[in-house]
Amino acid sequence: MSSEKKPQAQTMIDWACQCLQQQGAAPEIAQAMAEHLVAGDLLGFRTHGLLRLRYNLQALQRGTTTPTGSYQVVSQRAAVALWDAQLLSGLFVLPQAVAQAITMARTYGTGTIVVKRAQHVAALAVYLEQATAAGMLVQMMCSTPAQQVVAPFGAKSACFSPNPFAIGVPTTTTPVLLDMSLSMTAAGKVRTALAEQRQLPYPALITAEGDYSCDPKTFVAEPPSVLASLGGAQLGYKGTGLNLFSELWTLALSDYGRAEADPADGDANTVWIQVVDPTAFAAEGQFAQQAQQLVEAVKACQPIDPNQPVRVPGEGALALRERQLQEGITYSAATWRQLQWCEEFCGVALP
Amino acid sequence: MSSEKKPQAQTMIDWACQCLQQQGAAPEIAQAMAEHLVAGDLLGFRTHGLLRLRYNLQALQRGTTTPTGSYQVVSQRAAVALWDAQLLSGLFVLPQAVAQAITMARTYGTGTIVVKRAQHVAALAVYLEQATAAGMLVQMMCSTPAQQVVAPFGAKSACFSPNPFAIGVPTTTTPVLLDMSLSMTAAGKVRTALAEQRQLPYPALITAEGDYSCDPKTFVAEPPSVLASLGGAQLGYKGTGLNLFSELWTLALSDYGRAEADPADGDANTVWIQVVDPTAFAAEGQFAQQAQQLVEAVKACQPIDPNQPVRVPGEGALALRERQLQEGITYSAATWRQLQWCEEFCGVALP
Repeated sequence: MSSEKKPQAQTMIDWACQCLQQQGAAPEIAQAMAEHLVAGDLLGFRTHGLLRLRYNLQALQRGTTTPTGSYQVVSQRAAVALWDAQLLSGLFVLPQAVAQAITMARTYGTGTIVVKRAQHVAALAVYLEQATAAGMLVQMMCSTPAQQVVAPFGAKSACFSPNPFAIGVPTTTTPVLLDMSLSMTAAGKVRTALAEQRQLPYPALITAEGDYSCDPKTFVAEPPSVLASLGGAQLGYKGTGLNLFSELWTLALSDYGRAEADPADGDANTVWIQVVDPTAFAAEGQFAQQAQQLVEAVKACQPIDPNQPVRVPGEGALALRERQLQEGITYSAATWRQLQWCEEFCGVALP
Repeated sequence: MSSEKKPQAQTMIDWACQCLQQQGAAPEIAQAMAEHLVAGDLLGFRTHGLLRLRYNLQALQRGTTTPTGSYQVVSQRAAVALWDAQLLSGLFVLPQAVAQAITMARTYGTGTIVVKRAQHVAALAVYLEQATAAGMLVQMMCSTPAQQVVAPFGAKSACFSPNPFAIGVPTTTTPVLLDMSLSMTAAGKVRTALAEQRQLPYPALITAEGDYSCDPKTFVAEPPSVLASLGGAQLGYKGTGLNLFSELWTLALSDYGRAEADPADGDANTVWIQVVDPTAFAAEGQFAQQAQQLVEAVKACQPIDPNQPVRVPGEGALALRERQLQEGITYSAATWRQLQWCEEFCGVALP
């Protein structure tokens, strides 16, 4: 039944917004949270869409996500600033940080905000177009001081969180939107494979014995396996370097590392956001043309499989959003059950 | 015989500096070039050390590397600038760009210089300590508009250059120095395997037929194989995203892409340099402590092989430099033969 459901995006935003307010979120906070969760669904980041509404409602109820108020500016110097999100939702604070970074970039050529203690940020992909719509480049990284599930190269125990890395870039057509993890896979994908009783498509886990494994059951064994850094058994030193890059530019810059993080912060994240204004380098419009050239060079490469043209990051997500904005969002039966749980929890009828 | 040679670094800098001046390089240019090539040898980046002196001497002789003069500031806005290296050596211009980025970071929190048309930049690793010694973080990326040897994911032809990515970060002990390519391997390593008649340790090449291959002979076949993006057959979309990141932040920002690049520019590079001053975020000294914590967490992970402790990027290189500064630099017989070629070419006796 539920796999037939194809509600309109705006309908789902309104419903989720009501649910979030019912759990105490201030109206503008609930609105930003609902919009950015549904934005994830629209782009196909389904593990970071309304599937996570339940998590957000419970975090509001428990008080681990702050329901009202604003971020605090901890420090600032011209083109950079450190914000404390004070355990507000990242879905609410990050769009404001991107906006501020855009303003800085207009004045200084670039603007950087590091945000610490931001609750659920969902998919970084949903924040990128704010910058690209303003004609700017944006780069984002996120890490989680209370989490350690990704191993450095050569290790069978973990020291990193699963760290996403994202860029958004304007072209003369659709923007480049990249949002990827710096590990071989994400914890969510391992849990999905576990639930569906199937192996991972490649050895992304390292067992407590030090073996690379495709078996998601090892992830819940005692002691559990850990996620491998991008590059795996042969090139994992590269992923380790990239994970260090992410954690140094987030945790270390914010002066809020694994030793300082309050255990009560739970899943709270630290995010690096940097916006660059290309008109500080060359005449208006030149950057988009150069970016378009690069995108077209990628697409013009000869595909290994003639039926699978070479793709540019974001292309598929933007096409899916276009379709879902017209036809409604497709929710799986499993996700719809989570939404029914939220319906009951909040007493707000699903559309 | 020559594998016995262990000359002192300063001796080799002086000799190389004389050779470079003999080919017309201005004294301060020759000095910077010699110093940064030998710095590569000291850190163990041997394919980017004095082995490349011959290439640099010939480029000066042919006039493809500019021997005198200075870079030109194309544009500037507070925390960012675009420089045209005017085909001067990157070995001479990049240290000046890092210095300028450090100055900007003191005022604005961060400083970015994009340098276009820089000849030989050698190993990005040799520029990082300028920033870390000033207590700052530095990130560098480099691409080469006239080169296309790296394939995007799903393709069997190339659109990217081999793009190095580097970071330097101060800690309370030795700095983190990362310098890696965003492809599965570097062209130099393929050529070395070819010369030594051995297979690559993992399938880093994609043949014209679209097969992943370990065979370096395919790289000189007609049509030749291309380098795979980091991530390979399964996760190459991540390396493709990172290569796009690199080329958008270098070629596109500098408004000097593959369509504009003068074929006479040859191997000229475009480099992104960004320095961040951590004291704009938190009190002096806090960043180094946080970075040290992260480094120690990496080293404290349980090694898969008990005899191979988990390593931090730069650790091995800095230890090697320490040893070579004391005992002299070890040059292979093959490299020494190249230096003998330079000796004859310039008529400057090798030490």
